[in-house]
Amino acid sequence: MVQRRLVSMAEPHLAALETVITADGWSGRISVSSGCDTAVRNANVPEDGGLAQRHLTGVQVAENRANAPGPGAVGLDVQVRTSRSRIGIALALRTEASGPANTAYHQSAGLYAHHLEVAVGEGAPVTVTKTVAVATSRDHAVSSPLAGAQAVLARAGTFEQLVADHERAWSLLLAPFIIDSDAPSQAQLILNLHVFHVLQTLTLHTAELDAGVPARGLHGEGYRGHVFWDELFVLPVLNSRLPSLARELLDYRWRRLGTARDAARAAGLSGALFPWQSGSDGTEQTPSLLYNRLSGHWLPDYSHRQRHVGLAVAYNAWQYFEATQDRGWLTQHGAELIVEVARLFASMAEHDPADDRFHLRGVMGPDEYHTGPPEHPDAGLADNAYTNVMAAWVFDQAEWIMRSVRGFDMEDLKGRLGITTAEITRWARLSRRMFVPFHGEGIISQFAGYGELRELDWAGYRRRYRNIERLDLILEAEGDSPNRYRLAKQADVLMLFYVLGEDQLTGFLARLGYPVTPEQLAATVDYYLARTAHGSTLSRVAHASVLAQRDPEQAWATFREALDADLDDTQGGTTSSGIHLGAMAGTIDVVQRSFAGLRITRDALTFTPRLPAELRRVGFQVRYRDQLLAVHLEPGRLAVTAAPGDAAPVLVRVGQQEVFLQAGQRHEFRAVP
Amino acid sequence: MVQRRLVSMAEPHLAALETVITADGWSGRISVSSGCDTAVRNANVPEDGGLAQRHLTGVQVAENRANAPGPGAVGLDVQVRTSRSRIGIALALRTEASGPANTAYHQSAGLYAHHLEVAVGEGAPVTVTKTVAVATSRDHAVSSPLAGAQAVLARAGTFEQLVADHERAWSLLLAPFIIDSDAPSQAQLILNLHVFHVLQTLTLHTAELDAGVPARGLHGEGYRGHVFWDELFVLPVLNSRLPSLARELLDYRWRRLGTARDAARAAGLSGALFPWQSGSDGTEQTPSLLYNRLSGHWLPDYSHRQRHVGLAVAYNAWQYFEATQDRGWLTQHGAELIVEVARLFASMAEHDPADDRFHLRGVMGPDEYHTGPPEHPDAGLADNAYTNVMAAWVFDQAEWIMRSVRGFDMEDLKGRLGITTAEITRWARLSRRMFVPFHGEGIISQFAGYGELRELDWAGYRRRYRNIERLDLILEAEGDSPNRYRLAKQADVLMLFYVLGEDQLTGFLARLGYPVTPEQLAATVDYYLARTAHGSTLSRVAHASVLAQRDPEQAWATFREALDADLDDTQGGTTSSGIHLGAMAGTIDVVQRSFAGLRITRDALTFTPRLPAELRRVGFQVRYRDQLLAVHLEPGRLAVTAAPGDAAPVLVRVGQQEVFLQAGQRHEFRAVP
Repeated sequence: MVQRRLVSMAEPHLAALETVITADGWSGRISVSSGCDTAVRNANVPEDGGLAQRHLTGVQVAENRANAPGPGAVGLDVQVRTSRSRIGIALALRTEASGPANTAYHQSAGLYAHHLEVAVGEGAPVTVTKTVAVATSRDHAVSSPLAGAQAVLARAGTFEQLVADHERAWSLLLAPFIIDSDAPSQAQLILNLHVFHVLQTLTLHTAELDAGVPARGLHGEGYRGHVFWDELFVLPVLNSRLPSLARELLDYRWRRLGTARDAARAAGLSGALFPWQSGSDGTEQTPSLLYNRLSGHWLPDYSHRQRHVGLAVAYNAWQYFEATQDRGWLTQHGAELIVEVARLFASMAEHDPADDRFHLRGVMGPDEYHTGPPEHPDAGLADNAYTNVMAAWVFDQAEWIMRSVRGFDMEDLKGRLGITTAEITRWARLSRRMFVPFHGEGIISQFAGYGELRELDWAGYRRRYRNIERLDLILEAEGDSPNRYRLAKQADVLMLFYVLGEDQLTGFLARLGYPVTPEQLAATVDYYLARTAHGSTLSRVAHASVLAQRDPEQAWATFREALDADLDDTQGGTTSSGIHLGAMAGTIDVVQRSFAGLRITRDALTFTPRLPAELRRVGFQVRYRDQLLAVHLEPGRLAVTAAPGDAAPVLVRVGQQEVFLQAGQRHEFRAVP
Repeated sequence: MVQRRLVSMAEPHLAALETVITADGWSGRISVSSGCDTAVRNANVPEDGGLAQRHLTGVQVAENRANAPGPGAVGLDVQVRTSRSRIGIALALRTEASGPANTAYHQSAGLYAHHLEVAVGEGAPVTVTKTVAVATSRDHAVSSPLAGAQAVLARAGTFEQLVADHERAWSLLLAPFIIDSDAPSQAQLILNLHVFHVLQTLTLHTAELDAGVPARGLHGEGYRGHVFWDELFVLPVLNSRLPSLARELLDYRWRRLGTARDAARAAGLSGALFPWQSGSDGTEQTPSLLYNRLSGHWLPDYSHRQRHVGLAVAYNAWQYFEATQDRGWLTQHGAELIVEVARLFASMAEHDPADDRFHLRGVMGPDEYHTGPPEHPDAGLADNAYTNVMAAWVFDQAEWIMRSVRGFDMEDLKGRLGITTAEITRWARLSRRMFVPFHGEGIISQFAGYGELRELDWAGYRRRYRNIERLDLILEAEGDSPNRYRLAKQADVLMLFYVLGEDQLTGFLARLGYPVTPEQLAATVDYYLARTAHGSTLSRVAHASVLAQRDPEQAWATFREALDADLDDTQGGTTSSGIHLGAMAGTIDVVQRSFAGLRITRDALTFTPRLPAELRRVGFQVRYRDQLLAVHLEPGRLAVTAAPGDAAPVLVRVGQQEVFLQAGQRHEFRAVP
């Protein structure tokens, strides 16, 4: 039996399944069952066993000859409704055998199926093809889900035609994402796999769906489809290749501004409070408990205190604008996101007259292993460095936009949001007076008080547990708590290096009144590299990126570990509840952001290449403003070729060299590091 | 009793109703009933009496205190589902009295209501406020319709706050649409009314709804919500002020390309065949019968033969691009619309070796009174001039885009649609060799054979019937047929003047090998002005526009008639089944397109003002590319002021004078006609 399956990239409402059966050494009759299981359950995540597993109701199924006009073919119509969101879903099915078939229709326990009985001669293949169209009451341009599904099915050609259309659509979509390199072939294959998963989850069709970036892709039930901050790792890859899709993902957040504003008000704050785990309506859906499989305990989950998710939304909005200069979107949606997040943090910031600094209390950073001081694990932390610096960034950005982007549309925005001059002035002050904690010899502290925590016996724990990524569960099972130690689940302070880049971070700290030396930053990197458990798949992506500019070989090793996360299921079985989309996209981004050193700045596309020994040649495409650029990098040389057209020239910078590249031009930078 | 009602422009999910009752000369107790009628019927159009009138099913209603936490307040939750499209709709209601109220809940025959009994003292007003939130399963960012409605209701403030938010939103929306003129105050008021209706139907909120331009607004049940070609009259007003909304309305068509491609294939044609009456899924919904209230007969309705609707879609797509230079949209969506429409007409065009011309047969023009030759009223017409010339325009446009707009994104488009060089070459040939019929002394014929029809006794019919707008019904009732006469329901040949403008039309005909003199065009205009019954409200809009450049006084008179159409219900009672949105928007457009002579051309914004005596001063705003321009026009002077900002300069042309206008600059053109 040989089976081919596809969910069409050409027609997103269509899936098909071709089964070729060849009798080897016998002949006779075989029966194939084809239909629809309306009793499908979501039972893939053991910890969620106590939650609702059936989400479909109002099942109506009927045979329909019109779906399958040929002889030996059978048709079925299925209509259901989701139990809570009341979305109507319809399927129109057709099953065809390549030869004459006796058919019978059966139904039992929610399974509706046709049995096709066909004669098989020895060595003579019989093909059974099932084609399924799906439409919902949320779809555009349908008069009813069932009529919509039937129309798609009626339009669907043979399996070969569907394959051809599917492949053509994939090949157009893939083209700008292909990374051409001399990396070891396994690394290349995994990168391709990651590109595939990113583009299977987030496609041009996503644009019509009001869909966010699901943490686990479309490939598992982990987190029940909730949306976290993963855009921060995914959008760099999309902004630079398929910006219209990036914009749609940002609009997903924009449509939930109302809910985020409600959440801020309910917390006594201003602006918009985006939730850590965002449900379909944008409300906070972080569970209050977390299961520790090592101790069998249910532990309190405080991760909703990760206010920094809003900073990621604002940063993503700005990065999209930088990549595209899409001013219409900035004034209509983007600046609303940035301003409302700035307002949230402005209302959270508490001024301390003692040091004339602003402080953020009761928060958690990306490192979820620290939830509060050891004596108050439920209280949140004060002055998480990542949150405070990124808040300063968002204040600066909001102020810059309001003062620098001129025009009637910005005036309109000010009117719409009621932005006052006093407010802009306050953002300017906050952007210069946020507190940043340090300890020891000028190490940036993950949060205030981090330096006073104990050191963990890393070697001892590694020896005892081998895999210590989930140190939180290990320590809890021992009756201890990660809140007592200098450790991190994942990159936290180092996220600042990852997001802003070292140059921008240095400038930013200086502007805040914290001049730091390169040695201090190097010591900070080393400090946290030695104290991170990598309990999140995102962690190695950030670390590989930070390492690239300092130690390309160690960066490559970390990158290789990041590549293996889902393929080898290194998180100890979490891949069965879904791939880790942010980490997959992050590895693609490491190639361009870290090894090629690509950054989008206010005026230019800049490269600071640092190729490791394992990667001596890499080529990829970047869409920047209205140009499509092919980048080719080898040791000492970086060539950029702009696709022909009539788009305006763009500025490309490599170190001190820069060039205005016209459409159709090629430029080779020499003496590149 | 004083009642204020609003459907909020600030929060599109919210409506409110405030009733203030003051006892005058008495005191006592009053009872107010407030709830929801789930048995609502659509029974407003007598001819549709035989069709389904109830569209809601699955009614679930429950009292809900949480919707109305205060004392003397009552809350209700309503959930229903549309019967065919299976869209879940939920309402969350709150009713509050200003004083203590006894409340009771009643239900009968689908009506669910609370009765609030309140004491009224003489001269002491009692206020009852009803606030209703609505959400559907099609809405973005809801977890369920009911939860979505409840969240909106929970967020809703007092009636005064809702009014303030509503007014602020309206005032921001209205600002660019205000026409400031010295026209007689009644004309100004009606223009304002038309602006109001256009913006109540098509708002910034429409963008999220996949909504088209409904022929009868949101104000009646006529045509059952079907979408015709009215965008052609509405988009000029939106392209020049709120282009993001125009784009959404074009995307409504783009999302129905699949259905239109199906329709073309089913008719044995290529490309996309947009329907005359487009249902929610984009299928043809033109009824097969039309009721003649004069004869009591049901007549065959052939209006689906109006293939020209696709030409309007393509033209609108191009005009949006000209207004905005939104290249991303052009390459992703706009060019797809234009190319697929060009393909349809290319597949319809039949070459006649005798004259080496291409012909379009079996069609109807905008004039629906001619459905075929007198002997074959069901056969359609050959070579409708409007359709043939606009088809030539779309061939020319498709060819121009494919040859002139360069860049990787256009290459991608070619790949996506499989556009070949041979195809582009064929469009170029078709754009130069379409047949255009003429008769008499070089009059453009409405269609081939029009010149051989009989003249109608116009004076006799006007005497006998007074209002002869519906000559089709009159003639049928007499046992005659409009197919036998030289008459028109509405502008048909003159639509060419209206859409293309006289200069472009002249150039285009010359390019087709039909050089025409100004005298010929003048004679053509006079010819059809004398033979048009104005059986469509759109007709006077086009005529006023065509007249403006030749006879401003007659143009003004026709414009005044166009203004009165819905307010005086001049179409003999059709306004009760909905306003005529195209005609309303058209009157706004007449001011800018005809009296100010505004045209958007490939390189510039041009004005050819011709003010009638009744309009000596007019000011309005135009958004052109990234500039917002305030236009002020008086006899002899036209001033254009660009709003401050950093947008690129735009070229403005008045006659032979032209200027590149920078943001923030003002330029006054003198010696303007």
